[in-house]
Amino acid sequence: MTDRRATRTDARTETIMRTTLDLAREVGYAKLSIEAVAARAGVGKHTVYRRWPSRGLLFLDAVLSLNTAGLDHPDTGDIVADLREVMTRAADLLSRPPWGPLYQDLIGEAQHDPEVAAALNRRFIEPQTANTLARLRAAKDQGQLAPDFDLDLAFEILSGPLYYRLLITQQPLTHAYIDRVLHALFAGLSPRPQTR
Amino acid sequence: MTDRRATRTDARTETIMRTTLDLAREVGYAKLSIEAVAARAGVGKHTVYRRWPSRGLLFLDAVLSLNTAGLDHPDTGDIVADLREVMTRAADLLSRPPWGPLYQDLIGEAQHDPEVAAALNRRFIEPQTANTLARLRAAKDQGQLAPDFDLDLAFEILSGPLYYRLLITQQPLTHAYIDRVLHALFAGLSPRPQTR
Repeated sequence: MTDRRATRTDARTETIMRTTLDLAREVGYAKLSIEAVAARAGVGKHTVYRRWPSRGLLFLDAVLSLNTAGLDHPDTGDIVADLREVMTRAADLLSRPPWGPLYQDLIGEAQHDPEVAAALNRRFIEPQTANTLARLRAAKDQGQLAPDFDLDLAFEILSGPLYYRLLITQQPLTHAYIDRVLHALFAGLSPRPQTR
Repeated sequence: MTDRRATRTDARTETIMRTTLDLAREVGYAKLSIEAVAARAGVGKHTVYRRWPSRGLLFLDAVLSLNTAGLDHPDTGDIVADLREVMTRAADLLSRPPWGPLYQDLIGEAQHDPEVAAALNRRFIEPQTANTLARLRAAKDQGQLAPDFDLDLAFEILSGPLYYRLLITQQPLTHAYIDRVLHALFAGLSPRPQTR
């Protein structure tokens, strides 16, 4: 492919993805169709199907093309502060347009379409998990976490309450909520032995 | 309404709900329609629409009509054992047909339909939360939980990891997993002061 043709293909891909997001926000994901995207983007529907075999996979690509930079863990040496930083950024992203409602629709689609679920995990969830795990391992090495804490669970335990609010109760993901979750998880449910 | 007519209406309601679940399992939720349910159940589609204004609300009623007894908390006096008992029952329910995949579809639909989300919370999530909270309060009164633990968060922290596996990573909800979650949540992330 010549450079000029590659550039034109890239531009068309971008137009199709942007149109997908625009339409999803305007008509709602339930009514989104590849036909409608193609018509609005001014391309034939086979052009869309050639690249994306289903509406769900097109939507996944479009949502993940939005900028979600800033979810990598900093390392200031203070594990609580660093987790708080990333969790509040994630909460802000999840609570607000454009990402929040689009991501919710994406997870909704993943419940009915195993290919979307698999791609979401491979492309978004797994890299995030690996990043958090690396930060937690460093903290454990520095004695900031309980030496026997099950780190492989940590991402599920940290993220679970946020996803539960987002997907089930739809209560707000405030910074105060993040603080409560972190406080509870660090302290644990068991009474601590008294130190006098 | 005479008794006989009421009985006939109840029987028809039950047929429609059973047909909804059968069809969802056969063709998948994405392809489920009120028209198809009406045709298979042998009723007019207006009969269905008269009672359920949308596919999502019909599906919600049908899924919640399945027996989910056994999610109430026992009180044996041992909070860890009692939480374990209910969480393993919930995990079994969520992991297996018929409830598991149908409930996943229901949560998927709740992401696109606010009426389904609201009804799911009111009819299923809130009563479960209240039941867990009552059991945790009793345990706190008996000194089995840290006196300053944020109990209002407890249901979100206990359920979050299960929902995260069910809806996001789709890793198995085994009894061993429940044990790991409970162990981690009781111990907490912080190193404990040494007691010698």
